Amino acid sequence: MTMTGIAVSRSILSTKHNFSLPTGLDKNGKRARILHLSICRTSPTKLPMKVSAATLGLEASKLTKSSCGAFPAIVDVDLGDRSYPIYIGSGLLDQPELLQRHIHGNRVLVVTNTTVAPLYLDKANTLMKVFDKAIESQLDRRSTFVALGGGVIGDMCGYAAASFLRGVNFIQIPTTVMAQVDSSVGGKTGINHRLGKNLIGAFYQPQCVLIDTDTLNTLPDRELASGLAEVIKYGLIRDAPFFEWQEKNMQALLSRDLNAFVYTIKRSCENKAEVVSQDEKEHGLRAIGNLGHTFGHAIETSCGYGYWLHGEAVAAGMVMAVDMSYRLGWIDESIVERVNNVLKQAKLPTRPPEMMTVDMFKSAMAVDKKIADGVLRLILLKGPLGSCVFTGDYDRKALDDTLHAFCKS
Amino acid sequence: MTMTGIAVSRSILSTKHNFSLPTGLDKNGKRARILHLSICRTSPTKLPMKVSAATLGLEASKLTKSSCGAFPAIVDVDLGDRSYPIYIGSGLLDQPELLQRHIHGNRVLVVTNTTVAPLYLDKANTLMKVFDKAIESQLDRRSTFVALGGGVIGDMCGYAAASFLRGVNFIQIPTTVMAQVDSSVGGKTGINHRLGKNLIGAFYQPQCVLIDTDTLNTLPDRELASGLAEVIKYGLIRDAPFFEWQEKNMQALLSRDLNAFVYTIKRSCENKAEVVSQDEKEHGLRAIGNLGHTFGHAIETSCGYGYWLHGEAVAAGMVMAVDMSYRLGWIDESIVERVNNVLKQAKLPTRPPEMMTVDMFKSAMAVDKKIADGVLRLILLKGPLGSCVFTGDYDRKALDDTLHAFCKS
Repeated sequence: MTMTGIAVSRSILSTKHNFSLPTGLDKNGKRARILHLSICRTSPTKLPMKVSAATLGLEASKLTKSSCGAFPAIVDVDLGDRSYPIYIGSGLLDQPELLQRHIHGNRVLVVTNTTVAPLYLDKANTLMKVFDKAIESQLDRRSTFVALGGGVIGDMCGYAAASFLRGVNFIQIPTTVMAQVDSSVGGKTGINHRLGKNLIGAFYQPQCVLIDTDTLNTLPDRELASGLAEVIKYGLIRDAPFFEWQEKNMQALLSRDLNAFVYTIKRSCENKAEVVSQDEKEHGLRAIGNLGHTFGHAIETSCGYGYWLHGEAVAAGMVMAVDMSYRLGWIDESIVERVNNVLKQAKLPTRPPEMMTVDMFKSAMAVDKKIADGVLRLILLKGPLGSCVFTGDYDRKALDDTLHAFCKS
Repeated sequence: MTMTGIAVSRSILSTKHNFSLPTGLDKNGKRARILHLSICRTSPTKLPMKVSAATLGLEASKLTKSSCGAFPAIVDVDLGDRSYPIYIGSGLLDQPELLQRHIHGNRVLVVTNTTVAPLYLDKANTLMKVFDKAIESQLDRRSTFVALGGGVIGDMCGYAAASFLRGVNFIQIPTTVMAQVDSSVGGKTGINHRLGKNLIGAFYQPQCVLIDTDTLNTLPDRELASGLAEVIKYGLIRDAPFFEWQEKNMQALLSRDLNAFVYTIKRSCENKAEVVSQDEKEHGLRAIGNLGHTFGHAIETSCGYGYWLHGEAVAAGMVMAVDMSYRLGWIDESIVERVNNVLKQAKLPTRPPEMMTVDMFKSAMAVDKKIADGVLRLILLKGPLGSCVFTGDYDRKALDDTLHAFCKS
């Protein structure tokens, strides 16, 4: 599939052909060269044509059309000299100057997959292919890596940007709800190890995050719902009014109402940015963003990445964390019911897969990153809606009871 | 080979047997568990017995003997909240409390090789083995990685520490002159790519650097001389009095005079610390530490890592950079002579290997990290002894002439 003169769906195997072309000006007024590393499995691209074309800055006319574009909502991530903006809106990829102000140097490596589907199986291999491509193309320290895709692309490309020549500029263009509301914001990058998720990586902040809500038009329903799990998470851990809004507006989100989505993404990014600003490297507070993730990662590791989508595993994991919180006497039963209801509205699972056993959970949870000095710390709800704790100080029996309640022993 | 109850020379292949034992107390008063990942090729350890035993904190009696130990010289690397001390002296590895105050958490992974020889061929593979070992041992974010060995071990272990769970504590115990005067200080970590040296890595600062000069007792002459190339470098780029001191004291260094070495290491670390403090991430100034390295890396890449030691390649590279500086009219002929003389005194090469051609230099230099927007920037001497510039603004003919003067076309 060829668009506007450049093949974007070429397999990684064909990257020996350099995709390079002149494009718009970088912030120093120099012409930037674009190197397109398309990482695909088998299927042709499902990215909307305008995403690829505009991102690559192929149409000079776009430079003057920007005033027609929607004015983006902006969320600032406040991290001192590593601060950056998140732009949110419809049609932002038709405004190349938004990107260009954040491009350093005169060469850009675009890392994308040609489906928005995850590449769980070969993330480490694709990382090496990004390095190969960058080195063969003689990219230098003043080049920019652009991640165009879902969370897996962003995580992997970010870690590649962090490690290539000990760090080059990096821009996130997330194309899934999951990546737009969570993974593209905050600088967590990494790849999986066969024994656990995201065990190898770096904290590395992008120059900017560009969220064009038009990319959601082609997102499969299941991917969209998966991202909503993280949206629901923000309500539960720190934003009760947002949770209440979701209870009333879940149908609008499922029917892809634009205004509902811009609001959801913006509010999610605000929540995430506030937490990240206070605890960039997850010494404590930031861990609350992992509500349900310890259980969820156990599901993903045990069943194999890709068996369930990340948000589906997190949804089931949140129900388990909420169940455990209730067993500990830390929350009212009404919260348990509301969480189950809103997840069902979002068409997300509320139980782990049938195949999961207590032992599978236990052995996967034994390598969780949140273990400190041998104690597994969990994010649990405590108090009224919107309040949580990150703690290793809980009755082990409640954890055991939850595991037994949700799976075969 | 077994020492004090722990096998330290086991091959990486035997790391399924967990080497773990109780040792001294960490700074929180907890007992730390030591996991020993010994990365060896074929030969048994050449590290002095006391290094391994004391580092592992095996002998409780050492805790009370510390007052007998030499008082270390200390160089502070001033990097704000990433600042750390360098301890330099004889017998420091017999003072385990020096290390213990920098160990966080209760588990330590010691990464070492059993010869001090480089592991150029399988650095990426050994990186993966460090991750495997860390994950299999269920190390968490509060563990500490200790690099005990030469520069390759330090670079690789540091990158592993930077990437494992997005960053764990890290301590450098360099055991070669090269690592003690240069690579262990300043936070550059990384691994090689088949197409170039240290192209993949991170800036990641250790908690401390512990330099026990006793480790030099068993260092081969050739390794020792290799390290002196970096010492000579500091004189040339920014410390003329140190260069003059070296001209007078090279014999003392070659005969391993302790006082001469402590002085040399301290002064080298001071020079490096000053530069790193001003430019941690090599936006400009820090690059001066790479005098001769662009030519040197070309030699290492073209001839194969390990054909020459790093310092040997750097020595020849410095002569080439000095030659080019002279051709540009930037320095007096007397400096050219003095550089040649001091390198010969140190028994270091003053020409690249016979096999190097002009084209080999050119193609290797085309992927140098110091290229910016397509222009190769070099560190060249300019002005009186001890003055240099980092620039891409030079007559290309001088570079060509230097290449042709030193190798077959």
